Amino acid sequence: MSFGTDAKGVYAIATTPFLPDGTLDAPSIDRLTDFYQDSGVTGMTILGIMGEAPKLEPAESRAVIRQVVGRSRVPVVVGVSAPGFAAMRSLARDAMDMGAAGVMIAPTPALRTDEQIVQYFAQAVEAVGTDVPWVLQDYPLTLTVVMSASVVAKIISDHPSCVMLKHEDWPGLEKISKLRAMQKAGELRPISILCGNGGMFLDFEPERGADGAMTGYGFPDMLVELVNLFAAGKRDEAHDLFDAHLPLIRYEQQLGVGLAVRKHVLMRRGVITSDAQRKPGSVLSATARAEVDYLLRRLARHDPRAPV
Amino acid sequence: MSFGTDAKGVYAIATTPFLPDGTLDAPSIDRLTDFYQDSGVTGMTILGIMGEAPKLEPAESRAVIRQVVGRSRVPVVVGVSAPGFAAMRSLARDAMDMGAAGVMIAPTPALRTDEQIVQYFAQAVEAVGTDVPWVLQDYPLTLTVVMSASVVAKIISDHPSCVMLKHEDWPGLEKISKLRAMQKAGELRPISILCGNGGMFLDFEPERGADGAMTGYGFPDMLVELVNLFAAGKRDEAHDLFDAHLPLIRYEQQLGVGLAVRKHVLMRRGVITSDAQRKPGSVLSATARAEVDYLLRRLARHDPRAPV
Amino acid sequence: MSFGTDAKGVYAIATTPFLPDGTLDAPSIDRLTDFYQDSGVTGMTILGIMGEAPKLEPAESRAVIRQVVGRSRVPVVVGVSAPGFAAMRSLARDAMDMGAAGVMIAPTPALRTDEQIVQYFAQAVEAVGTDVPWVLQDYPLTLTVVMSASVVAKIISDHPSCVMLKHEDWPGLEKISKLRAMQKAGELRPISILCGNGGMFLDFEPERGADGAMTGYGFPDMLVELVNLFAAGKRDEAHDLFDAHLPLIRYEQQLGVGLAVRKHVLMRRGVITSDAQRKPGSVLSATARAEVDYLLRRLARHDPRAPV
Amino acid sequence: MSFGTDAKGVYAIATTPFLPDGTLDAPSIDRLTDFYQDSGVTGMTILGIMGEAPKLEPAESRAVIRQVVGRSRVPVVVGVSAPGFAAMRSLARDAMDMGAAGVMIAPTPALRTDEQIVQYFAQAVEAVGTDVPWVLQDYPLTLTVVMSASVVAKIISDHPSCVMLKHEDWPGLEKISKLRAMQKAGELRPISILCGNGGMFLDFEPERGADGAMTGYGFPDMLVELVNLFAAGKRDEAHDLFDAHLPLIRYEQQLGVGLAVRKHVLMRRGVITSDAQRKPGSVLSATARAEVDYLLRRLARHDPRAPV
Repeated sequence: MSFGTDAKGVYAIATTPFLPDGTLDAPSIDRLTDFYQDSGVTGMTILGIMGEAPKLEPAESRAVIRQVVGRSRVPVVVGVSAPGFAAMRSLARDAMDMGAAGVMIAPTPALRTDEQIVQYFAQAVEAVGTDVPWVLQDYPLTLTVVMSASVVAKIISDHPSCVMLKHEDWPGLEKISKLRAMQKAGELRPISILCGNGGMFLDFEPERGADGAMTGYGFPDMLVELVNLFAAGKRDEAHDLFDAHLPLIRYEQQLGVGLAVRKHVLMRRGVITSDAQRKPGSVLSATARAEVDYLLRRLARHDPRAPV
Repeated sequence: MSFGTDAKGVYAIATTPFLPDGTLDAPSIDRLTDFYQDSGVTGMTILGIMGEAPKLEPAESRAVIRQVVGRSRVPVVVGVSAPGFAAMRSLARDAMDMGAAGVMIAPTPALRTDEQIVQYFAQAVEAVGTDVPWVLQDYPLTLTVVMSASVVAKIISDHPSCVMLKHEDWPGLEKISKLRAMQKAGELRPISILCGNGGMFLDFEPERGADGAMTGYGFPDMLVELVNLFAAGKRDEAHDLFDAHLPLIRYEQQLGVGLAVRKHVLMRRGVITSDAQRKPGSVLSATARAEVDYLLRRLARHDPRAPV
Repeated sequence: MSFGTDAKGVYAIATTPFLPDGTLDAPSIDRLTDFYQDSGVTGMTILGIMGEAPKLEPAESRAVIRQVVGRSRVPVVVGVSAPGFAAMRSLARDAMDMGAAGVMIAPTPALRTDEQIVQYFAQAVEAVGTDVPWVLQDYPLTLTVVMSASVVAKIISDHPSCVMLKHEDWPGLEKISKLRAMQKAGELRPISILCGNGGMFLDFEPERGADGAMTGYGFPDMLVELVNLFAAGKRDEAHDLFDAHLPLIRYEQQLGVGLAVRKHVLMRRGVITSDAQRKPGSVLSATARAEVDYLLRRLARHDPRAPV
Repeated sequence: MSFGTDAKGVYAIATTPFLPDGTLDAPSIDRLTDFYQDSGVTGMTILGIMGEAPKLEPAESRAVIRQVVGRSRVPVVVGVSAPGFAAMRSLARDAMDMGAAGVMIAPTPALRTDEQIVQYFAQAVEAVGTDVPWVLQDYPLTLTVVMSASVVAKIISDHPSCVMLKHEDWPGLEKISKLRAMQKAGELRPISILCGNGGMFLDFEPERGADGAMTGYGFPDMLVELVNLFAAGKRDEAHDLFDAHLPLIRYEQQLGVGLAVRKHVLMRRGVITSDAQRKPGSVLSATARAEVDYLLRRLARHDPRAPV
């Protein structure tokens, strides 16, 4: 199970558990780490956008990395996106020193032209060091930076240390096909592609060429099963499983409120103690919570993993 | 069946059918109008964002209005959003003269502050005339204008001619609840709320207080059935129906490519002759078309309306 | 005096004169046309962003074109940017039929990647016809579309009918230098570059390689004199003239309020009857008007053209 | 000379001096601190947008604060804007512990509605502590957050610890007038207003009601003189001084390249050793440097402070 261009399966985007008073919840971090691995994930990604990274003090970020890396038996990737390269570099170096497998870098929102985007990643790679394996995050909906397939390919070609694409463009199925076609045509070296967007298109992404998923949906065990079904060529069974989860996946994939749903589900499943977020955070209204619980009850008819 | 603050049910967002050479397809417009009504819709909305309105010459827009209004037995709402008030006014007046029930107005993308938004709609209402009933379109994902519930309420309060909210904020369930709570508290007059976003949350919107849907999903007959199930208090049956359609609803709700999916489904259902779009238009790749057809086959197991 | 890749001098961005009641002011359009030509401009551009084009009905746009083209002895360029290609095509064809020298096209605000921008102009050229000479407008501050020098070069290379760049990137001096360097290196064919941004950098743009200005500052006669001074190698005199006008140029270059300043100055100079704008329009407060008049009095000490 | 709602004069936005190898240049920081005070400024603002704050490691930020606060005889304000409240709080508390007079907070770029903006500042004030005096930064051009006068007034009213507005809306003269009118009408408590935007409108802002400037133009001594001339009622002399500097002010006010101009001027004036920026940084081309030097030579004819 290595973190490289041949990585496959599911990388769990980890939430960061807090207690209701806002302090880091170390026991829940341990349980969450174990839970992801018991679910069969091939990797973990911490301190990403859904990990409330900007709400942590620098010392807290390091504590989370140390704890997760120390406990995990699968590669741990650390999100190091930052408004400046100084913070990005120091977090990346610290993470690697503590045993992280690599880092994840997203473009800074102000970028517009292809040249600006390409140059930004050149500077980012220089900042973190060319020896640090990294994941390129392509997430236009939140980051407002749109990367064409050719720009993604250029960045991959420019930087041998880029080993993976976290693909969450929307719509994005054609982009996966384009990148894979470039590789078939010998225009692009191999790279791992794991998909995000909460899993919203994971019923088609593997057939388009994705190696799996990197997302934080509250049922990573189902994501693993789904990717395995596709690997085994069991298309209809995969869709049956996916369709049972889609109402909840869709509900969780709402901007802003999504993290609250995710934490609620993880709490309902007994993994984390509290669904608290640090400010500014979204909160589920009583009605929304009841809606999620209703979706869980409906899911339980098809999937015994759903808590009732 | 009137177009007013008590409007309920489903208003179909109509696509505009073209032949492969780009000319308007009048026979398909007739069939589409009939199809929507046979589906049980309570209204139709033409020349909206998904109606390729900006690709029509002024004379063509008028021709489409005349044809649909002349054939429809339900109220027809005409989208009149435009970069300037002159075009908005002339299209609105022409539409009303031809027998339209009202118009739909979206905010222009440059608006930012609450004041700017409120003022824009004041000028728009002055432009189209205070006697023209209109629908307020709230669609931040595409229009980049974010309206808080209080701004929506202010616009409604300022303009008695505003009879309906086309709600497609995302996430948006709480916004419906807030507006309905304002009405219960006597702070806001009654208004019809119909939901868009391709129906992605129509399994919860009616319980939040929505009066129905205004969207263009390729199965308006299913939307009508769904809204009726909720009206009859049959929650579980409603969810069963919704869940069967969700994989396709989700696929169709992709920005850009969605219209191609929608037209493909309407063509597969025999309603329109061609799925052609005028430029710039999205095109389904062979793989994407096969994916949609696969979803239709899966849907057919639950819903005989799906073409196989 | 031809409109082609060798165009030089000053193209006046014309305002559209209205009477206080909002009707088009035909006598002022004639006076304005004469004024620009008496000022020594080599061309005129009508129905641009500062020409309130979206506030005109289609028939009014045609009337303005007919009147200006009929009276002008210099080439007239018509802005045809529109939310859809149908309106763009019909306005372009009508304008050319009436004797316009060419059209101006700006990118639509939603464009992000290099590929999207390049493709948009390919579709626009197909829409207006490959026989219509056109000006590429590069104005990121208002349009939010950022075009790198290489994208501008690609568009120019793709379309022989593109004869001119209206350069108003900000900052933009290096972009002019880059494009001219590409031409020196034989990588780009000749093209005329006229600069906008209200003239804010016209004290350096000619030395960077610009052929002149395309802007609507209230003193086109000064812009002509300035470009001539640079052509004659009189650098210091050019800067002296520019510096005397800069306080007013800067005041006029404010987004939104700028057009009100411009119309006020043209009215003060006796060219147009009223400084009225159609809604939504900016209005000068009494204080702002007094500030502009103070700047005009200060300018009059250096330039007798300033009205006192 | 206190930092409170009665603050007047010029607060210098300090650049952060680096050596060509990217290390902090402590001797230049001392010289710069002295230079600002010898120029007559009434305050200093460090670690703002033009202070390259995101490029500093947390420890470096603290070192800069300690050094400047230790040396300055005028109040020092520290920019603490950050993507998360944790970093904002810790930097603010550290800064106050080291003797800073207060902090400056800008809205985070994602904010859109009035409610979101008001709520953000409520959370920010809670984060830094209600005992920390702070400056509200209103800078839409770079931050993309547009605050109406009524929103600014609401924030000021909600938070007694807000003592100053850094006004750099563009255009913005009417906003100053509106806020001052609200105060005259008793609707808003007193607050200091200092203007930014590089000083581009400092020839009118004092008459509109501004208390002075908070900007980093390379001639803070001239800014001080200008504000004093206005305070003494010497309007024409103030404009004469301003107009002599406007060509350079305008050149420096270019987004991105502006900081390079500013550092070049400070280096030319002998204040800092190097004009180096940390990556990503703008660099003056040889042509641009020659243009700035030409402007300095022209300025020297009117103002002996300009280096030749």
